[in-house]
Amino acid sequence: MRAGLVMLADTRTNAGVDNISTYRKTTLWGRPGKSVLCLTAAGNLALTQAVVNRLRRGLEDGRHLDDATDMVTAAEIVGESIRAVHRADGPALEAHDTAFNVTFLLGGQMRGESVRLFQIYSAGNFIEAMSDTHYLQIGEHKYGKPILDRVMGPDTRIHDAIKLAMISMDSTLRSNLSVGMPIDLTVIRADTFEYDLERRIDETDPYFLTIRQRWSEALRAAYLDLPDPEW
Amino acid sequence: MRAGLVMLADTRTNAGVDNISTYRKTTLWGRPGKSVLCLTAAGNLALTQAVVNRLRRGLEDGRHLDDATDMVTAAEIVGESIRAVHRADGPALEAHDTAFNVTFLLGGQMRGESVRLFQIYSAGNFIEAMSDTHYLQIGEHKYGKPILDRVMGPDTRIHDAIKLAMISMDSTLRSNLSVGMPIDLTVIRADTFEYDLERRIDETDPYFLTIRQRWSEALRAAYLDLPDPEW
Repeated sequence: MRAGLVMLADTRTNAGVDNISTYRKTTLWGRPGKSVLCLTAAGNLALTQAVVNRLRRGLEDGRHLDDATDMVTAAEIVGESIRAVHRADGPALEAHDTAFNVTFLLGGQMRGESVRLFQIYSAGNFIEAMSDTHYLQIGEHKYGKPILDRVMGPDTRIHDAIKLAMISMDSTLRSNLSVGMPIDLTVIRADTFEYDLERRIDETDPYFLTIRQRWSEALRAAYLDLPDPEW
Repeated sequence: MRAGLVMLADTRTNAGVDNISTYRKTTLWGRPGKSVLCLTAAGNLALTQAVVNRLRRGLEDGRHLDDATDMVTAAEIVGESIRAVHRADGPALEAHDTAFNVTFLLGGQMRGESVRLFQIYSAGNFIEAMSDTHYLQIGEHKYGKPILDRVMGPDTRIHDAIKLAMISMDSTLRSNLSVGMPIDLTVIRADTFEYDLERRIDETDPYFLTIRQRWSEALRAAYLDLPDPEW
């Protein structure tokens, strides 16, 4: 977090395993030179798109995500947009027994603040990653969590964080069909107030393939290298 | 599976994070020299204990797990015991809005058969691991799945399978409080018709600590060794 922020999202949505599609779940916001914001979504696609559409249009009281000058206000605006969608769509979803299920990550930096990262819930409230938490995950998070728990730290370099995000995503991609390529990578370096990198990565990306193959080989070598039990 | 079977279960049960306890989830069955069976449980503890108690007592029609002479019949007996518990407890659970939630793994070998592994569901039906599937997991399975997906194969040695089971469990233990030490390890080598190993492993076990520490170091080294992106 000191060096900046790496955000990575897949693009798979599904209405059952027999009905999968590709949708971008990452949107970028802010005013270059002043603020830089990346928003990623998990949950019901109709709902997360409705939240983003309301953010694009601006809230009913006139507030706009791009106008926010501190990150807490930005997170509040996203939360308020979620609540507006809940007011509009919640009763109809309830009538159809469909859960109101959305989660967002909002990361970025405003002039005068450090890089900050928030997780915003269906109820529109949110938590912020603090000094003991070096990453946040939403959606299908379990497969990719162990490597982050073992290695992520406050002083992780940006390039290492990119590698870790790729490894974590690759573990999830291999083990769960509800997560799929391509993936969208956004990198924000601290105190630049612009996007260092915004890149779509598909199955043919040479760097991703290198990471995937070399990581598998390294794991295989590492476990073979562990001592056998003496029992 | 060719070399045999490694089964590993934790002992954590919880009724909320403020109420955790330790219960053995592994039971052993069979007749030495003829059959060797290991049963592990996940789900509601009252239900899984009820299923095991009925198995110990024998089914109402007189069948007993120790008497089975083929693995499919053994899996059917476990399934029938689950159905008997469902008939006895299901209506009361439903009245209290509690899910009937149990899953078992049954692994072992009978004379005249190869080593076989089954997963038995709440409904008492079951699947068997076939030639394309080299492991099965129940309970909190996601954290520990990626390493198994990457490395497990039909020709994995028993000692390597023990290492992999420990690494997979360690990943889960680190990332999820609902899984906890000690862990129970059972090893069945093909064509011996007895338990090669039955061992309880706690946080002070030197081999487990070695695996935990060296695996973490190896992962850290492996990811640092990956090339940086050129972007």
